[in-house]
Amino acid sequence: MTPPQEMTPTQAREAFRAGLRVPTSGYCRGWTQANLISLPREYAYDFLLFAQRNPQPCPVLEVTEPGETSAGIFAGDLRTDLPAYRVYRDGELVEERTDVTELWRDDLVSFLVGCSFTFESALLEAGVPVRHLDTGRNVPMYRTNRQCRPAGRLSGPLVVSMRPVPAELVPAAVRITSRYPAVHGAPVHVGEPAELGITDVDRPDFGDPVEIRPGEIPVFWACGVTPQAAVMQSRPPFAIGHAPGHMAITDARDSSFQVP
Amino acid sequence: MTPPQEMTPTQAREAFRAGLRVPTSGYCRGWTQANLISLPREYAYDFLLFAQRNPQPCPVLEVTEPGETSAGIFAGDLRTDLPAYRVYRDGELVEERTDVTELWRDDLVSFLVGCSFTFESALLEAGVPVRHLDTGRNVPMYRTNRQCRPAGRLSGPLVVSMRPVPAELVPAAVRITSRYPAVHGAPVHVGEPAELGITDVDRPDFGDPVEIRPGEIPVFWACGVTPQAAVMQSRPPFAIGHAPGHMAITDARDSSFQVP
Repeated sequence: MTPPQEMTPTQAREAFRAGLRVPTSGYCRGWTQANLISLPREYAYDFLLFAQRNPQPCPVLEVTEPGETSAGIFAGDLRTDLPAYRVYRDGELVEERTDVTELWRDDLVSFLVGCSFTFESALLEAGVPVRHLDTGRNVPMYRTNRQCRPAGRLSGPLVVSMRPVPAELVPAAVRITSRYPAVHGAPVHVGEPAELGITDVDRPDFGDPVEIRPGEIPVFWACGVTPQAAVMQSRPPFAIGHAPGHMAITDARDSSFQVP
Repeated sequence: MTPPQEMTPTQAREAFRAGLRVPTSGYCRGWTQANLISLPREYAYDFLLFAQRNPQPCPVLEVTEPGETSAGIFAGDLRTDLPAYRVYRDGELVEERTDVTELWRDDLVSFLVGCSFTFESALLEAGVPVRHLDTGRNVPMYRTNRQCRPAGRLSGPLVVSMRPVPAELVPAAVRITSRYPAVHGAPVHVGEPAELGITDVDRPDFGDPVEIRPGEIPVFWACGVTPQAAVMQSRPPFAIGHAPGHMAITDARDSSFQVP
């Protein structure tokens, strides 16, 4: 079988459609990964405005027409081609599943939101290690004490992902990721998890814990799970998101989201 | 009287509110200028999606709540503090006026969209001349043959602004403006107006013509009048925009829209 990092987006999507359920970090090197949030049309304006007001956690890459099952930068089927989905009713997570075809609705508008996995290959190339990749885990993600700017009926906390970075490589990590503003860009915080309201870095709200070794600093980037935290807080009647870390792999190149 | 370039945003807005009707290029050096488009709430999603799909001509800096008359980055009154406005009914330009207070509606959502005047002081500092500034004119703007990606009921052509740049300074002009993606960023075209469908550069669709001297190349940037061209083509029942070149002067610093 093709190693995950060498798969094309089409190959990876086929594998996920066939039932493979894994976090997508490290898959399809060079191809952009995206968060998914699908909401009823009557919530679409509130969400697009929420994203406009919170561009660092919610950089919108693509928006579908109501009911559409693929998107400009995603030639696959949004209902089947992600490894796993989360289903929300009135803000409650009611189900996690690998296929949402039978739950799909004609009024669902789907938003693809940039994902920090996109810049991980640039980090690796620069010699910045990515612990969850090395250890085959999902990235750890945390709800923070920072509130996003609300929009209409939507409000919620900023969610962040964390990567431990050796202290001497923190400047490189900041510099490299700041070139990718459409996939969360530079970190929002370096060190001091308590200031973000994170009481225990070993107990992430989403994903898996990773070891922070001596000499390493926890570095926090805005995370595209933020829309799902807003769904949980704001309780729209229905929503579908990706399972955190189990992303939509798009047909867009990482490099297309890099700025000079 | 304070020279225009040294005015604060508050001073300039007061002057405009009192009736001064001038293009704002060169005003309030260092402060961000913005295009205005105000649309009924029922068109707000279509417009925000149009902007998301066409970020180069329509970089949204701020969105108001329905009926609001000021915005986060604009402490003035959106109904009076621009030098001039254009009023559209069913897509027809019906009126140009300096105050739209009596036309204001509780359902109007106002969008502030980045303006290329914002990077003109950076061009000047780098020795790139800005002809319309030197000659006290409005910038020339043109409808092009390039269509924007439509969104819902909104579609229309890309509108561009033009600045003649000495050939040897074109690279500097590209480099400098590419650092300002939120105010249109790098040019969309360098030279060859005919390829954009511009048959006569001396007859702009908006603003004033400017001289292109020997050795100068016409350089075209995406323009925030694009939303008004979409209004003209798509004919929403009601819309208010700024008079082209007569911008909203905001309380945000130019530098806040600069990327490294």
